[in-house]
Amino acid sequence: MTPEEGNAILKDYFAPWVQGLGLSVEEVGERHAVLRLPWSSELAREGGGMSGQALMAAADTATVIAIASARGGFVPMTTVQQSTSFQRAVMGVDVLVEVRITKLGRTLAFADVTLTADGSQEPAAHATTVYALLG
Amino acid sequence: MTPEEGNAILKDYFAPWVQGLGLSVEEVGERHAVLRLPWSSELAREGGGMSGQALMAAADTATVIAIASARGGFVPMTTVQQSTSFQRAVMGVDVLVEVRITKLGRTLAFADVTLTADGSQEPAAHATTVYALLG
Amino acid sequence: MTPEEGNAILKDYFAPWVQGLGLSVEEVGERHAVLRLPWSSELAREGGGMSGQALMAAADTATVIAIASARGGFVPMTTVQQSTSFQRAVMGVDVLVEVRITKLGRTLAFADVTLTADGSQEPAAHATTVYALLG
Amino acid sequence: MTPEEGNAILKDYFAPWVQGLGLSVEEVGERHAVLRLPWSSELAREGGGMSGQALMAAADTATVIAIASARGGFVPMTTVQQSTSFQRAVMGVDVLVEVRITKLGRTLAFADVTLTADGSQEPAAHATTVYALLG
Repeated sequence: MTPEEGNAILKDYFAPWVQGLGLSVEEVGERHAVLRLPWSSELAREGGGMSGQALMAAADTATVIAIASARGGFVPMTTVQQSTSFQRAVMGVDVLVEVRITKLGRTLAFADVTLTADGSQEPAAHATTVYALLG
Repeated sequence: MTPEEGNAILKDYFAPWVQGLGLSVEEVGERHAVLRLPWSSELAREGGGMSGQALMAAADTATVIAIASARGGFVPMTTVQQSTSFQRAVMGVDVLVEVRITKLGRTLAFADVTLTADGSQEPAAHATTVYALLG
Repeated sequence: MTPEEGNAILKDYFAPWVQGLGLSVEEVGERHAVLRLPWSSELAREGGGMSGQALMAAADTATVIAIASARGGFVPMTTVQQSTSFQRAVMGVDVLVEVRITKLGRTLAFADVTLTADGSQEPAAHATTVYALLG
Repeated sequence: MTPEEGNAILKDYFAPWVQGLGLSVEEVGERHAVLRLPWSSELAREGGGMSGQALMAAADTATVIAIASARGGFVPMTTVQQSTSFQRAVMGVDVLVEVRITKLGRTLAFADVTLTADGSQEPAAHATTVYALLG
């Protein structure tokens, strides 16, 4: 899969409201994907920080791209569980969303997602996701 | 606190993108809150189901309202952790988001959030949230 | 299923180290189970509180009993995900572990587990669990 | 801190039942720790796999060692939240428990814990933990 194919999946399979995040695929591989969540004041809560809701949504969305990449294309799937912790505020910069597929089973996939403010070494948030693969 | 005060918090403190969910406060109490997430095709993914991203965002947002209600008004706070499981698809109906504060400490609050398709007895999704209270 | 049958499952299917918790089944039903985790200084960490490790292990174990009860007997299964939050210390009293099955699918089951010090109204800990059903 | 000091913490602060896991500290550093969970049939459930309860308990315990190492010695702390996913069965071999502290705040610490069967490249389980630092 190419980043362009990843971007096509973002356009074809996600809710318009989720597309409002403005995510784009920077990199896809056999077991990973990197997406960029562009900074926007639309995503910022009072006080100026990127909203946790946007970070959770980005982690979930990026997992779909990574699983699609691992499977060689989009397959029907559904989120089973997502656990997210919030560690550092993000203000005024894009967020890089890096997903590693840690297990790609026949019916379940597991991923590890690190969200980092562009230019930072330390995570803004961290998520683990479990997906059911339906096809 | 009244539902109107809850709605004012939604308007004043949340990211414009989160406000795009169209959440409204139906009920607030000493240790709980109920919000309504109205059905919208903007929130639906390919296939027609409500997106998990919208459900996670609604759970997080509703927790803020419930904590504000428990504290008698908005206080600065930040999400520490949210764990969400997805149990049933929602298609074409509103979702009721019920939050119970299970612990309101001095610096940490814990909540239990059940998201149910309006008219259903069984949860669509379930979340637990941990917040740090900053004031 | 009866509590006695639940106790037999505890004896037959769990690791000896887990049996060291001393759990017993108090109640089982179509979609729920209640187990008792007896206070023991063996389970207490420095300072005298019940260890979080014991609470997590009790929540996991109790979910197996509740799923078995919902299915009418033990079936092979494996934990997919457990999220646990710790809200109040427990000192010197038993803990009641109440499990509600919130979704019993063909291949996945979801449960909500509340752990409460005997005599208290407020949770000591709260867990959500996801299981894969293998038979 | 040295591994020996880590082992002394295991002996001094943990419940006797948790000490029954037989954990030992292999490595400690500024922001990480590696512990070994030795294979034992006492920890195995019916079918012969290492119990999920033992893996969760090891992840929690190892986080304490890593935080103590990051702080230069044991400090009072309490688990706030642990999310664990179970990805591969472990049979007949030790488990290595690697903890990375991803945020060490004044009152909260966050860690990422990977549990891997000795000799394997792929995780058996993965946990994220949040701790409240009390001193």
